[in-house]
Amino acid sequence: MRDVAIIGIGQTPVDEHWTTGIRHLMLEAGLSALQDAAIETVDAVYVGNMLSGEIAGQSQLGALAVDFMGLGNTEAFKVEAACASGAAALRVGTMAVASGMANLVLALGVEKMTDTGGRETTAALAAAADAEYEAGQGISFVALNALLMQRYMYEYGWKHEDFANFAVTAHANGVNNPNAMFQSRISAEAYARAPMIATPVGLLDASPVCDGAAAVVLAPAEYARALSPAPVKIRASAVGMAPLAVHSRKDPLALEAARTSAHKAYQLANVKPEDLDFFELHDAFTIMAALSLEASGFAERGKGVQLALDGEITLQGRVPIATMGGLKARGHPVGATGIYQVVEAVLQLRGLAGANQLPNARLGMTQNIGGSGATIITHILEGMG
Amino acid sequence: MRDVAIIGIGQTPVDEHWTTGIRHLMLEAGLSALQDAAIETVDAVYVGNMLSGEIAGQSQLGALAVDFMGLGNTEAFKVEAACASGAAALRVGTMAVASGMANLVLALGVEKMTDTGGRETTAALAAAADAEYEAGQGISFVALNALLMQRYMYEYGWKHEDFANFAVTAHANGVNNPNAMFQSRISAEAYARAPMIATPVGLLDASPVCDGAAAVVLAPAEYARALSPAPVKIRASAVGMAPLAVHSRKDPLALEAARTSAHKAYQLANVKPEDLDFFELHDAFTIMAALSLEASGFAERGKGVQLALDGEITLQGRVPIATMGGLKARGHPVGATGIYQVVEAVLQLRGLAGANQLPNARLGMTQNIGGSGATIITHILEGMG
Repeated sequence: MRDVAIIGIGQTPVDEHWTTGIRHLMLEAGLSALQDAAIETVDAVYVGNMLSGEIAGQSQLGALAVDFMGLGNTEAFKVEAACASGAAALRVGTMAVASGMANLVLALGVEKMTDTGGRETTAALAAAADAEYEAGQGISFVALNALLMQRYMYEYGWKHEDFANFAVTAHANGVNNPNAMFQSRISAEAYARAPMIATPVGLLDASPVCDGAAAVVLAPAEYARALSPAPVKIRASAVGMAPLAVHSRKDPLALEAARTSAHKAYQLANVKPEDLDFFELHDAFTIMAALSLEASGFAERGKGVQLALDGEITLQGRVPIATMGGLKARGHPVGATGIYQVVEAVLQLRGLAGANQLPNARLGMTQNIGGSGATIITHILEGMG
Repeated sequence: MRDVAIIGIGQTPVDEHWTTGIRHLMLEAGLSALQDAAIETVDAVYVGNMLSGEIAGQSQLGALAVDFMGLGNTEAFKVEAACASGAAALRVGTMAVASGMANLVLALGVEKMTDTGGRETTAALAAAADAEYEAGQGISFVALNALLMQRYMYEYGWKHEDFANFAVTAHANGVNNPNAMFQSRISAEAYARAPMIATPVGLLDASPVCDGAAAVVLAPAEYARALSPAPVKIRASAVGMAPLAVHSRKDPLALEAARTSAHKAYQLANVKPEDLDFFELHDAFTIMAALSLEASGFAERGKGVQLALDGEITLQGRVPIATMGGLKARGHPVGATGIYQVVEAVLQLRGLAGANQLPNARLGMTQNIGGSGATIITHILEGMG
């Protein structure tokens, strides 16, 4: 098995792109990544996307991507694992390069959630849950997270206000990310005043509906230094799974799939959580940030919120998260998020994260969550520069 | 790169499964394949599916599959390339085993097209075309194929009746396949009398809307003989692509993606078309069967129909196709079709194809087409028994 490295990155701003179609988003991010890698073609393109069939009546995003990007007869198809689709596409790309079946691969994540022609976005997002046992009973994805948050507060005695720093920190970091949807600070007071969407999930606990695309170019690690001035090695790619319906999980607050995914990744990379310089986690909701920190070994059960309260999740903290704004402030174009996380991790590892640059960042982790914790994919990345 | 073999197969009957959900179809085919391989777990499950998000409001089929099959914390996600989703899932599974990132993989194809709760099936299928330039203008998938057939008849002087044997042969072979949707013969007269759906595509030129699931278990070829009494080696897996919108193709009747896909496969396997004992092609429409035979090197341009007229596509002919009924008679549950083709090829290579068994079948080819020719995936399989 060949080691795999990232030699190029690209992204569109995350925004409500009312005048831009899904093919244009793919084009912009994809060509930008090829340009960054200083190459013109690849052997395969794998597209992470969740909603295009439901929302836009467009399947076959692989074919659409290579067609519109002018890549002609290049292998391409779509990979889907709800909100973890981006990381799943990266994993398929990693397998293609690792196996030798491809040398250069473009892993591209894209989602266009505004301007829907088909099913309304909230209804379409509910497809990430169990359609018959959850969504079919009327529960939305926000409501599922609200149940988890409610239970967490009940079990461990936290109040809603204790979660504020997850949102405050993400927004503070988004200020310096030109591709973030929200480049503005919020205060703990604003967080507390925000209207409830599904109690106890308030407006500022939740990531926004938005559009965006991000892409990375993969190559065999052995050639990466010849191809890129600052390649990043994929030290680990690992998947954890849990039952799709939350009610089928023995211990929903354990986020079991994150635990197995992260610990498999630690084993593959032979590192410990404390070796990591930062952790781009899946803060689609503040409760998910807390659960992910705990399941991934950064805090004990019920203590994830304490890390936020103590300021340990900031750029100066022990476990910097959401360093470029995270899902909360950069935005969460669902099928693209897993690739955005990796693009931002690469920026940190290249030393190109601007005002948000972490000193001497060498080792970072990304974690992408699909379906309220059913599919969780963790990658550990190391700068080779 | 490790060679990969198939050590287990499973399938549900193809039918209108009005009382069976998508999770039950996956369960039946998946467990049947595990049982056939005499194993209880795998390292990963890749699900080929096109329509579940649009039709059933269910994404995350990977998580649903492992959850409902009792496979617990097993890596799983969905792979989509419209009607070529099944073969794309097989290709991802092949990459996983080839790379060493997995040893045992279940590649599962599933589609439930009846009993839709979301978009109506014909509208959902149009998502395989270009949503903005084709489907958005009102053309259905049948109509796209009708345009290709019309042009073919005009270019080469064939009449509608000349295509009859594609449907007649498929139905004749379906009679002996207990899993085929149509287990009844049709006559050339019945073909000619069938109502037009979109001229010149008649009812008996088109494959049916239906439900089904099929699965194969993959393992490293080096261990295959120890694991299975009759393993089948994947000699080649190859993808060809063409522009998504038919109007963007320089020569729509060339089926360029099939040509590159098949010829890449021949090169990888180091075989010629005439070395193959049979060819499970993608006869979603009779015109696709003709174009695929030509593009894959079995007939000259415009002469694919002649093979059917001469009886060369029957079990006794030079190029047996649709040996268990093909898409026309076995049925075409779109995202599952690519796996059904491989399951049937394995039956032939194991000598277990019953009344339709080809004598001394050793080498077979499958070809799965997505999006009226945009994504075409070819596999060459060889019996190791």
